Amino acid sequence: MSLVVMKFGGSSVADADKMRLVANKIVTKKKDGNNVVVVVSAPGDTTDDLIKMADKVNPTPPEREMDLLLSTGEIMSIALLAMTLDAMGEKVVSLTGPQAGIISDENHRRSKIKKISPQKILNLLNKEHIVIVAGFQAQNPNGDIATLGRGGSDLTAVALAATLKADACEIYSDVEGVFTTDPRIVKEAQKMDFLSYDEMLEMACSGAQVLQSRSVEVAKKFGVIINARGTFSDDVGTIIAGEEIIKKLSGRKKMEAFLVSGVTFDKNQVKFTIVDLPDIPGVAAKIFSNLAKINVNVDMIIQSAAVDKKNDISFTVTKGDMKKTRVELDTIASEFGATRVECDEKVSKVSVIGVGMRSNPGIAAQSFDILAKNGINIEMISTSDIKISCIVDEVDAMKAVEALHKGFKLAKKS
Amino acid sequence: MSLVVMKFGGSSVADADKMRLVANKIVTKKKDGNNVVVVVSAPGDTTDDLIKMADKVNPTPPEREMDLLLSTGEIMSIALLAMTLDAMGEKVVSLTGPQAGIISDENHRRSKIKKISPQKILNLLNKEHIVIVAGFQAQNPNGDIATLGRGGSDLTAVALAATLKADACEIYSDVEGVFTTDPRIVKEAQKMDFLSYDEMLEMACSGAQVLQSRSVEVAKKFGVIINARGTFSDDVGTIIAGEEIIKKLSGRKKMEAFLVSGVTFDKNQVKFTIVDLPDIPGVAAKIFSNLAKINVNVDMIIQSAAVDKKNDISFTVTKGDMKKTRVELDTIASEFGATRVECDEKVSKVSVIGVGMRSNPGIAAQSFDILAKNGINIEMISTSDIKISCIVDEVDAMKAVEALHKGFKLAKKS
Repeated sequence: MSLVVMKFGGSSVADADKMRLVANKIVTKKKDGNNVVVVVSAPGDTTDDLIKMADKVNPTPPEREMDLLLSTGEIMSIALLAMTLDAMGEKVVSLTGPQAGIISDENHRRSKIKKISPQKILNLLNKEHIVIVAGFQAQNPNGDIATLGRGGSDLTAVALAATLKADACEIYSDVEGVFTTDPRIVKEAQKMDFLSYDEMLEMACSGAQVLQSRSVEVAKKFGVIINARGTFSDDVGTIIAGEEIIKKLSGRKKMEAFLVSGVTFDKNQVKFTIVDLPDIPGVAAKIFSNLAKINVNVDMIIQSAAVDKKNDISFTVTKGDMKKTRVELDTIASEFGATRVECDEKVSKVSVIGVGMRSNPGIAAQSFDILAKNGINIEMISTSDIKISCIVDEVDAMKAVEALHKGFKLAKKS
Repeated sequence: MSLVVMKFGGSSVADADKMRLVANKIVTKKKDGNNVVVVVSAPGDTTDDLIKMADKVNPTPPEREMDLLLSTGEIMSIALLAMTLDAMGEKVVSLTGPQAGIISDENHRRSKIKKISPQKILNLLNKEHIVIVAGFQAQNPNGDIATLGRGGSDLTAVALAATLKADACEIYSDVEGVFTTDPRIVKEAQKMDFLSYDEMLEMACSGAQVLQSRSVEVAKKFGVIINARGTFSDDVGTIIAGEEIIKKLSGRKKMEAFLVSGVTFDKNQVKFTIVDLPDIPGVAAKIFSNLAKINVNVDMIIQSAAVDKKNDISFTVTKGDMKKTRVELDTIASEFGATRVECDEKVSKVSVIGVGMRSNPGIAAQSFDILAKNGINIEMISTSDIKISCIVDEVDAMKAVEALHKGFKLAKKS
């Protein structure tokens, strides 16, 4: 008998009607002859509501207590979904992260899964139960609850699929799959049938919110084939797998033709520039190691050529990290005698992604050409072998996405 | 160093302001030189809200899943209270029932505590932490969450006080202690300074909602002295202990003078009468064993003297059990050829309670006399050695409580 892991996001279990719709999908999967393990997130806005409650009593709550508080959202979901399935006459048991044998490291808030002891789940599957597991949570070596960071339920699903050697790992959300770009922005955006892990990782890091990055990394590491699909749709969704498997599934020809698979954008960017830093060794290292110490994730970095033994360093961070970055940079700037620190919130990152770029070096030039022809100025550029990202003025961002999407012929033929 | 267990009910932790008030009480207790273990219930109406959510997906949810769902309310409370204390600079750790080592039997919804392994709590107290424990929940032998029934947090507090050999067990709620009768009904009602376990048990069973009955039973068994007091008051509250200790604490003279300690009432009563049952052995046994099988708790029972080899049996149940009692009685009545089943919802139980009755047999007569003089008809009577209960028409209930409260001189001298 084959085993399917199905994961449903918070909007899929936000109320009793949606819960029943999800339960129906689970029952159908079971009736099709599969063992089913289900992973669910907290219902609707529960996690945000809990964070607000915490903020009222303590603006900097201990992480251990915050994890314990947040874990209640997913526990509500699993209990309610199990009750819904029971009402339909199904044999079902819900398990918290610790009960499911999910063990994390000692960190809180962004804990990593160290191990899964699947015996309890396997016993329940043997007794023909549907098993519902709380996403996002684990037990750490101290016996405390730890959470796996935003989107951690995806990670729970992929890690369970890897441990249980599941035949499929289906991640359901309110979108039908992964699109060539955001369909809310560009109405010609197409759902992709196949996408490689590397492309998905670049998409996720570049603002496409379909799957949590770490879950894709784990899927890649253990070869878990992910099927991202819509809860409220019957579409087959997008298959995310290794390049070889995708070539097999999709036909080699199609893969080669697919130079660019998607265009993403990210408005959650701030550009910092430190002007007139002395051009001596160790300055850049000092800046970025200090930012790493205060947990600021730096994205694109550009250092200008030195003029008069001085140069400028620009980089981007997310808006949430803006304040603490500013404080840190002001200290560093005065320490090294830089002229000033500039901060530009009105920027967006636009990225072109595709494994086809590896063997087609012309894609970067083509991207810049498309943007230039549309009168869009590029402020910063960074490239990897499957991604080209440009920082542009935020007023140009949507125009840039549409132009690139059209220029690389990703639009639906309608 | 002495150890105090403090328990706070749901209305005491209903919002951030109340949470801070509770936290201040805890900090004061700690600063007075005590080790402190705190037990909390779910905030405000959380438990009722969770029950409503469950009802929307399954009117008869599996008890295991219901317990898991309900356990989230207390987990929210402990995490938020720990955060509040952390914000005040206190060393504090919160523990779920399972983390606190509270082990239950295999039942759900009204599970019993089998054992508490206090090592984790003791370690934390040794490190000078305030320990916050989730009330109402335990881990059963299958590793599942089990809950301890309505008011179960009181039981958690008393069981912890017994296990940890605490010097005090303080149960805080929104009333200042145990009153001679409900102060919302009779404004002359007085807070009692002392009350024996047996009196408290009779009070609890007769409608006074201050403490859960089972927690008082456990306190009696292990000699835990309970101090019932108000969260929003500085009054010393009511001490509930064994009669010998109360005599010592209050002075023997006062104890002897205290014939009647309280008057309670319970509107949640339904009177059933099966008319013209055959007067043959085993009929009553059959009725009450059948009702026990469907979990109906029968309270007062009266069997009339047989006339023409037929008699009537009357008894009371709570309103929640009315429907299933009705169905069961109709079956039994037709089986035994009884004339009919009567059901009267418009009754209340009024009780007079006091250990002084043991040596003063005149209290019953005095009670009936007081009610008669006030023109109140008594429909049923039951007595124990410290309680006299009468079923009266519900329209007379408040008048009966006032008359008895006044007649036994319980009123405040103002």
